[in-house]
Amino acid sequence: MKILEERIRQEGLVLPGNVLKVNQFLNHQIDPDLMLDIGKEFVKLFGEQKITKILTVESSGIAPAIMTGLLLHVPVLFARKQKSSTMPNELYSAKVYSYTKKIENTITVESKFLPASDHVLIIDDFLANGEAVNGLLKICQQANAQVVGVGIAIEKSFQAGAKRITDQGIHLESLAKIASFADNQVHFVGENYNG
Amino acid sequence: MKILEERIRQEGLVLPGNVLKVNQFLNHQIDPDLMLDIGKEFVKLFGEQKITKILTVESSGIAPAIMTGLLLHVPVLFARKQKSSTMPNELYSAKVYSYTKKIENTITVESKFLPASDHVLIIDDFLANGEAVNGLLKICQQANAQVVGVGIAIEKSFQAGAKRITDQGIHLESLAKIASFADNQVHFVGENYNG
Repeated sequence: MKILEERIRQEGLVLPGNVLKVNQFLNHQIDPDLMLDIGKEFVKLFGEQKITKILTVESSGIAPAIMTGLLLHVPVLFARKQKSSTMPNELYSAKVYSYTKKIENTITVESKFLPASDHVLIIDDFLANGEAVNGLLKICQQANAQVVGVGIAIEKSFQAGAKRITDQGIHLESLAKIASFADNQVHFVGENYNG
Repeated sequence: MKILEERIRQEGLVLPGNVLKVNQFLNHQIDPDLMLDIGKEFVKLFGEQKITKILTVESSGIAPAIMTGLLLHVPVLFARKQKSSTMPNELYSAKVYSYTKKIENTITVESKFLPASDHVLIIDDFLANGEAVNGLLKICQQANAQVVGVGIAIEKSFQAGAKRITDQGIHLESLAKIASFADNQVHFVGENYNG
């Protein structure tokens, strides 16, 4: 998705430890028109399949997820990173390790919002080691819900997440695929790099 | 806003301690079409004023805020509840006490995303004691940014928040105003109640 790659190139900040900050338009300040374009792209890629629910995780997944839900007219469910006061037996949960923040979160979803009849499209902002998406996949397994696919805004293709998902036979689509941050520059998959 | 009141009446759960759960369409599972309707209502109420930024707080404020931002084509900035790894002098911050969760959070915004030239519409899902909105107002003061108004989806009008905001001379609009939860039912402001 050219427009997303352009924004990453123009506004993304490459930090030590292979961290890409896109706080200008995705993770802190959000560009709603870009989110709608991202939603349209996911609808192009997945829209011909039966989808009854969008599943994401708070907070940065919500914006791209809700635009996709708006276009498909289906509910958007976001997993929480803290346990709510709901009884545990009413929750599906999974542990998710954040390599960036070096903490483990438990993400949870109230079971009544994810019936076995659901056809779920998982949406998230970033895919690196695949921890968050894998947690969402585990939650769908607990629910016996069918996963239609996984849609990601920005994939760090040099990390393990993409393989981890596709190895499970899951249909993965990422709109911007980063090959490397060599020389503190963003290099996308398929682009010529003679750095 | 009749459609929002209807959804609250049909799907809201009244819990002890004046807690209203609207996890079915706003706080956990989100109805994107309803969020767009909420955004349209905020545009009706505030759209004739100059607005350059929508400010909210994660996570449940993001959905109504981003729809308002989409309709106005302005960026949406969400305050974080945890400090990021950014240096403190690059942040505006405020302490926010949650009466529901009985914890104090520090909400933060990166200062570069809130210049003094901004005309800010604050959007949030709930207004009860006004802690979150007051924190966002403090952040706007730190930034010397102009607050155009505060748009709330659901106001608990029997709690102190609304007065706390309007006493500061701030233009407040709430789309559903709850007068009481007498008999574990939702009673809206202006509705006849002979319970």
